[in-house]
Amino acid sequence: MNIAVVGLGLIGGSIAKAAKQNTEHRILGMDINESVRLKAKLLDAIDEVCTTDDLPNCDMVILALHPRAAEEWLQQSAARLKEGSLVVDCCGTKRKICQIGFELAEKYRFHFIGGHPMAGIERSGFDASSGKLFSKASMILTPEQNCDIRQLEFAKRFFLSLGFARITLSTPEEHDRIIAYTSQLAHVVSSSYMKSPTAFSHTGFSAGSFRDMTRVARLHEGMWTELFLENREFLAAEIDRLVLQLQRYREAITEQREDDLRILLKEGRELKHKIDELS
Amino acid sequence: MNIAVVGLGLIGGSIAKAAKQNTEHRILGMDINESVRLKAKLLDAIDEVCTTDDLPNCDMVILALHPRAAEEWLQQSAARLKEGSLVVDCCGTKRKICQIGFELAEKYRFHFIGGHPMAGIERSGFDASSGKLFSKASMILTPEQNCDIRQLEFAKRFFLSLGFARITLSTPEEHDRIIAYTSQLAHVVSSSYMKSPTAFSHTGFSAGSFRDMTRVARLHEGMWTELFLENREFLAAEIDRLVLQLQRYREAITEQREDDLRILLKEGRELKHKIDELS
Repeated sequence: MNIAVVGLGLIGGSIAKAAKQNTEHRILGMDINESVRLKAKLLDAIDEVCTTDDLPNCDMVILALHPRAAEEWLQQSAARLKEGSLVVDCCGTKRKICQIGFELAEKYRFHFIGGHPMAGIERSGFDASSGKLFSKASMILTPEQNCDIRQLEFAKRFFLSLGFARITLSTPEEHDRIIAYTSQLAHVVSSSYMKSPTAFSHTGFSAGSFRDMTRVARLHEGMWTELFLENREFLAAEIDRLVLQLQRYREAITEQREDDLRILLKEGRELKHKIDELS
Repeated sequence: MNIAVVGLGLIGGSIAKAAKQNTEHRILGMDINESVRLKAKLLDAIDEVCTTDDLPNCDMVILALHPRAAEEWLQQSAARLKEGSLVVDCCGTKRKICQIGFELAEKYRFHFIGGHPMAGIERSGFDASSGKLFSKASMILTPEQNCDIRQLEFAKRFFLSLGFARITLSTPEEHDRIIAYTSQLAHVVSSSYMKSPTAFSHTGFSAGSFRDMTRVARLHEGMWTELFLENREFLAAEIDRLVLQLQRYREAITEQREDDLRILLKEGRELKHKIDELS
């Protein structure tokens, strides 16, 4: 099977490498950056460089671009895609790209399934990619309600073969609501956390909690700006919830309501325990 | 040299184990829990169980109790301590314990240096202790202004021998101000983060950022309540700063001020980069 990976950054590069290592498919790679294309070919992350002329011969296309670039690429390339082929994107929000993908798929007779690999690191680009990035991770798929079940089955098997530990099925709406909390809010907090003037005094006064809390402040601001704006209602609701909680803790602390503070912390510990057990 | 470790929990147990492994000192251990005392002896984490009768023979006392228990122990035991001996506590805030320690030290002619090992994990108790807990960590010491320089030198060498990578000297006030940000705020955020109702849907939708953000929500609420209340002004100021930042991000998101949002995220990334380089 010919599989095109469009965008050879952290995610696309890792998908190409994992597919080359773990499957027999022919992997074609597309990237706007020539040196990335050449490096991917040289390192055997792809079998061949992919051009727009190759698209009609591809049975599967994996779209690993930032949200707006992915939307534009899909609109420009839909007419060239092979009838009956499968397109899966990798964007961090799902409502907008899926709306575009589902409509174009119907018009041009290909299949579209939304995707979001729950694996990232605080670095980006092909050089940071790894065939092992998806180990133990969850791959979220957001198919259309009336999607072709064989295509969904194929997508599940394909992503499991890349090393994902589990496939999570969701709707674009549910995905965006939950991801606002599990991922986007964490990035907003990490970035906000860095803004205290006390940060410059941290040397010698910090350990694991500071490191973990601020790790993802090393984000790609271009991509995350797009993701946050596309998901602004859900994300704003989660920021508001967190701020409300922080204010509850703050009041218990400044008013020295010792029992209330202990209960707030106990509730947090118990929730963490329960929720980790769900995983 | 006879060294008493008072309190054989995560920190005291780890200090005893590291001291036994890496030094020639005779390690005596004190704990209110008999089974912990017996287990520590059985596992060679200590040479002998320590009673109050042994205190006049101890050249160094390491106080590894929660803040209030440490304050009480010091008040009750100061009269029994050996003249010229050195006491170092391990409390997570330093102003209150140091004030008590410095006063009693002058009255009873022993030496007191405030201490805070910047190494913890999200578990507590002797069973979680390890002789390797302090590897790569910083040991903060807050001596009195006119402290005996030989005692300080001894304390530095002793803690480096336990595996600490560096000794950070500070005043109790500076320590409490910075620790409110680097450690206490992170614990407040982690605990608050767990309170969103969305948390129960996280399975399959989360990865490293959620795990790191909420790791320290598994805190010992009794100890952290004491620490937060002792440090309430500094901690409240840091919570306020974070809330203010979160609201700036929230407004840029909901008002779709794309350039402003990108700049906020870029600033956070650059601060994280600069501050990591300081370490």
